[in-house]
Amino acid sequence: MPIVVTNIARAERDATDALSKYGAATVHEAQGRTGLMNPRLRPIYRGPAISGTAVTVTAPPGDNWMIHVAAEHCREGDIMVVSPISHSVSGYFGDMLGALLKARGVRGLIIDAGCRDVDELQEMGFPVWSRAICAHGTVKESLGDVNIAISCGGIVVNPGDAIVADNDGVVVVPRLDVGRVAEASRAREERETMIRKRYSSGELGLDINNMRPRLAEKGLVYVDQADRDKN
Amino acid sequence: MPIVVTNIARAERDATDALSKYGAATVHEAQGRTGLMNPRLRPIYRGPAISGTAVTVTAPPGDNWMIHVAAEHCREGDIMVVSPISHSVSGYFGDMLGALLKARGVRGLIIDAGCRDVDELQEMGFPVWSRAICAHGTVKESLGDVNIAISCGGIVVNPGDAIVADNDGVVVVPRLDVGRVAEASRAREERETMIRKRYSSGELGLDINNMRPRLAEKGLVYVDQADRDKN
Amino acid sequence: MPIVVTNIARAERDATDALSKYGAATVHEAQGRTGLMNPRLRPIYRGPAISGTAVTVTAPPGDNWMIHVAAEHCREGDIMVVSPISHSVSGYFGDMLGALLKARGVRGLIIDAGCRDVDELQEMGFPVWSRAICAHGTVKESLGDVNIAISCGGIVVNPGDAIVADNDGVVVVPRLDVGRVAEASRAREERETMIRKRYSSGELGLDINNMRPRLAEKGLVYVDQADRDKN
Amino acid sequence: MPIVVTNIARAERDATDALSKYGAATVHEAQGRTGLMNPRLRPIYRGPAISGTAVTVTAPPGDNWMIHVAAEHCREGDIMVVSPISHSVSGYFGDMLGALLKARGVRGLIIDAGCRDVDELQEMGFPVWSRAICAHGTVKESLGDVNIAISCGGIVVNPGDAIVADNDGVVVVPRLDVGRVAEASRAREERETMIRKRYSSGELGLDINNMRPRLAEKGLVYVDQADRDKN
Amino acid sequence: MPIVVTNIARAERDATDALSKYGAATVHEAQGRTGLMNPRLRPIYRGPAISGTAVTVTAPPGDNWMIHVAAEHCREGDIMVVSPISHSVSGYFGDMLGALLKARGVRGLIIDAGCRDVDELQEMGFPVWSRAICAHGTVKESLGDVNIAISCGGIVVNPGDAIVADNDGVVVVPRLDVGRVAEASRAREERETMIRKRYSSGELGLDINNMRPRLAEKGLVYVDQADRDKN
Amino acid sequence: MPIVVTNIARAERDATDALSKYGAATVHEAQGRTGLMNPRLRPIYRGPAISGTAVTVTAPPGDNWMIHVAAEHCREGDIMVVSPISHSVSGYFGDMLGALLKARGVRGLIIDAGCRDVDELQEMGFPVWSRAICAHGTVKESLGDVNIAISCGGIVVNPGDAIVADNDGVVVVPRLDVGRVAEASRAREERETMIRKRYSSGELGLDINNMRPRLAEKGLVYVDQADRDKN
Repeated sequence: MPIVVTNIARAERDATDALSKYGAATVHEAQGRTGLMNPRLRPIYRGPAISGTAVTVTAPPGDNWMIHVAAEHCREGDIMVVSPISHSVSGYFGDMLGALLKARGVRGLIIDAGCRDVDELQEMGFPVWSRAICAHGTVKESLGDVNIAISCGGIVVNPGDAIVADNDGVVVVPRLDVGRVAEASRAREERETMIRKRYSSGELGLDINNMRPRLAEKGLVYVDQADRDKN
Repeated sequence: MPIVVTNIARAERDATDALSKYGAATVHEAQGRTGLMNPRLRPIYRGPAISGTAVTVTAPPGDNWMIHVAAEHCREGDIMVVSPISHSVSGYFGDMLGALLKARGVRGLIIDAGCRDVDELQEMGFPVWSRAICAHGTVKESLGDVNIAISCGGIVVNPGDAIVADNDGVVVVPRLDVGRVAEASRAREERETMIRKRYSSGELGLDINNMRPRLAEKGLVYVDQADRDKN
Repeated sequence: MPIVVTNIARAERDATDALSKYGAATVHEAQGRTGLMNPRLRPIYRGPAISGTAVTVTAPPGDNWMIHVAAEHCREGDIMVVSPISHSVSGYFGDMLGALLKARGVRGLIIDAGCRDVDELQEMGFPVWSRAICAHGTVKESLGDVNIAISCGGIVVNPGDAIVADNDGVVVVPRLDVGRVAEASRAREERETMIRKRYSSGELGLDINNMRPRLAEKGLVYVDQADRDKN
Repeated sequence: MPIVVTNIARAERDATDALSKYGAATVHEAQGRTGLMNPRLRPIYRGPAISGTAVTVTAPPGDNWMIHVAAEHCREGDIMVVSPISHSVSGYFGDMLGALLKARGVRGLIIDAGCRDVDELQEMGFPVWSRAICAHGTVKESLGDVNIAISCGGIVVNPGDAIVADNDGVVVVPRLDVGRVAEASRAREERETMIRKRYSSGELGLDINNMRPRLAEKGLVYVDQADRDKN
Repeated sequence: MPIVVTNIARAERDATDALSKYGAATVHEAQGRTGLMNPRLRPIYRGPAISGTAVTVTAPPGDNWMIHVAAEHCREGDIMVVSPISHSVSGYFGDMLGALLKARGVRGLIIDAGCRDVDELQEMGFPVWSRAICAHGTVKESLGDVNIAISCGGIVVNPGDAIVADNDGVVVVPRLDVGRVAEASRAREERETMIRKRYSSGELGLDINNMRPRLAEKGLVYVDQADRDKN
Repeated sequence: MPIVVTNIARAERDATDALSKYGAATVHEAQGRTGLMNPRLRPIYRGPAISGTAVTVTAPPGDNWMIHVAAEHCREGDIMVVSPISHSVSGYFGDMLGALLKARGVRGLIIDAGCRDVDELQEMGFPVWSRAICAHGTVKESLGDVNIAISCGGIVVNPGDAIVADNDGVVVVPRLDVGRVAEASRAREERETMIRKRYSSGELGLDINNMRPRLAEKGLVYVDQADRDKN
């Protein structure tokens, strides 16, 4: 039953590319606080944000064979997303596969397992988000799947979905939502730029967003320290 | 019962400010190896040490409303200390609130939960110690408290306590102890500078501190590898 | 029964020194995917690879006395390897001991516990791999052992074994295997350099390693997305 | 965009019900070692295996409102599967909701978050697999989804999939595979019963499965301790 | 500066004793979802709920001396609450101390560290909530404090506060709030008994609590699976 | 280089068998607080203590082949001790292998990885201490070693060492120390029985062990709550 799905549909290119401008936090908010992978997935080095279209891979624990299989089905603008079918921190990915994917135009790797050769990958500018940095080598014995729906970092990823990843984390945007979400992200950023300016000048969120009446209604009480000490 | 305590007493300013010179490890030792928060609290970027006076905040899991409330009660030289009342790694804090706190003279944030917008916060020079970097957004629905005694990183923090935080961790100094602890830190650093010089010249701690007799008394035995191999 | 073994045999110097050129991942592969410590051991700062000969230390939880004892038995080219006999993240090691070990020619520290003074250690160029950065001070009350077989990071380390550590992790090479492993590492690196070149030009692992027949034999099936959608 | 999908198709009843006879380990093996949730999901008490059809729920961190919404769409033979969209261990579920689901014929709950009232749930015989036992209450403020594809315990669960859960863990069987997998499970169990008999009489796996030639080919070497000590 | 505070005020006895009837989840809800310790604290065996008044202890990592000191200041109806000043899972407590505390009328132990002799403690009926079961012995070398405000399980505990602990977790009730919280717990339980009855008869929370209008207002949409498949 | 060492020397039988009477905590104390495995290793069910002689196994992550190889070299009174060479929680062991080992007189399994079929193993009375209960199946593709020194649960285990395991944890006693340690355990238990009697009658450790002078010398101060409140 292991399967490789070829010629997948991908999220619209321009909207996908735009996501990297907004970053993971904004995109995640813009699509209703969904799609953010678990924070155990961290960049192996701090670099710029990336966005691209997902090629999905499942792999047995400690076995990276399917990454080789999936590489053939990647193209310019893709991001490979790999999830072991059972918990593993082995080093599925290193500079060899980094060189291979980079040559094929892949923009980065998201892997819910281990990564190694972190210096070499940083040097060649191939970014990886992983749950561990671990040199333990993997075997090539058992099959998995390419381009089916997978669970990575606690989030369902479908092949062709848009991915945006930066130093705040990794967000998945469903393939057909990418245009709408890119637009909502742009709008949110615009709004935030204005508010940030007011915050920077010392204005309070309490006033900007008129929070005081609702706080009072919920029962918030203010007490002066001096009065408190008397009791 | 949610409460905001206003006009809290704060640790003496000069002594508090001096703590950043000594750093978390020295201050923690100087007050008898107490007050160090759990090492799960890590700086979101490596920067210089800070010290300041605590404004304390408790917040429901996944709800950052009280940070807005607390911001109004911060002033120049404060450090905000936030603890969720139940485990949460959501991203309570980002560049918007960073801009707000920075504008009010707050020197940094200690939060036993998640933080986001780490690049922007680094760029604006607003340091944060958090248990996770996580972009997941929070709601503004339920109340907590400001400026009561809280537990953060496994340590009791009272409002107005002094905080010192650097790349080794975060230490809390009780408000009224700050003068004594700053002085003890200074003395300890002086002593360490002398010993470090002797260490750097190759002298052993065994000799500097005359440890050999007590080691022998405790029963430590030396065996030459060659003799061991014979048996 | 606490014991210090003196005058231990050490892995051959030239081969040991050569290991740092190949790095943890390659050395670990070259000796049959063994000897890699658990990835919880991370460098306190990103620096160059080191290799050297192990001086081993066991210590009670929260007690760093034996590091002082062990220091006397270190010499140029050693790496100290410390493991608490029970789980501890206390800060066993800081800039004072760093100065001492550096003065004695020790190249670094591997410790399955906490480390502190990370800025000072980075400044002086003394690298440490630890399971935590934690400032909590330790006592000097109870004994452990020096230069017996220990378990560190899930791996057995014998005194005099070769250690190689870099940003991918820490690998132990048994004392008498170091020549053979250094040579195997060299050969592996040579082979990888050639393959990396082919990968970099876009050639697939599937083709370079002729994986397709074995994938087919294992039952891998390719399906076009369009055909899949029809069903 | 929050959505409740009604009238979902469900896995065939008889095959689904049969899965509980085989248990999680056997079913997982029978479908090619896939579908097993992360072992962080543990039963709140040790009880018999269950199987049923999935009603899927996503919920914001610390917010259990959608469980109430989903309850309406459960029917006899279902198992509710709940996953927060961001890490949370709050107590989403207790004896009140247990009473409600039990009344509707639901056979159990799988939740990648916290559960409470474990004594009461055990007493009423409503089994739960959760990642934590935690009493922290949740709010009812934000929406999620019911009966869309979710990620729970690291596995994609589609509404209507078959679930089997016992003291070894939780396994998901895709809706349309349940007949085939039930049959494969039966066959596997039959085979295992025979082999177990041979094992119980002291026969070795090495002999039953003729492993010796392949071990030799891989290079396994046998050495007598006495010979080893001589060197 | 280590200090033992004697003759502490304790929460009112009858109200404190009543809390065990309601259990941790109900008491926690009744005081506004506060006071629940982190779920890492688990009972070493499943037994009945207890409640009592807190005698608080801080202890150095791996050092249980202060438990002996604190024992003298316990009396009938107390619960000892112990927190190491730095992370430790050593076995601070076993059957010897269990026998001692039981003889003094102490009802149980809450410890944010390790416990051992779990069979013997279960046999003698002395309940413990701990973060680990660990046999590693502790020393008696360094001081801590008795009956000051401590942080245990992420919650501030003041001496004399009421504690309630059961198989759902551990809750702290501030000393002066215990009467009010006991009454609120009773009221909550009464209310829940009624609702549980309605749930048990199959009535939905959606209807009992009239949730439908607010769900609609928040934007929840219902879609039939059949309609969804058409698109 | 994978190796199976045959005809290993084993710890003396009678002393080894006696260890189970004393249990893990006592044996660990009796040998100077060493040899206790990490508390992540827990029994899959609560049963009686066992002791026996170690047959050691290393295995690749997710590969249980070597357990079959090792089974041939077990005999009546052994305990199998298995450690993956890299982190893995896969289910290396289940009721099939349990039946095999039981038939060969093996008393139990210690495994620093996952175990499955926990109900069946409990039913047949074959005890296992593991780091996880996980049904994920393993492959039989790569070699490891049998009866070499391994690291399991953070402790070095040599083939033929004595093992004692109970509900408090797992302790390793070096092969040649077992007689001495059994005797020291007996003596300790005798002593503890006497002290426990005094504790049970309410006598304090402070008095039995004359701790008060040393506490005073260390600087412990007693303050009455009433005096404290005055200040």
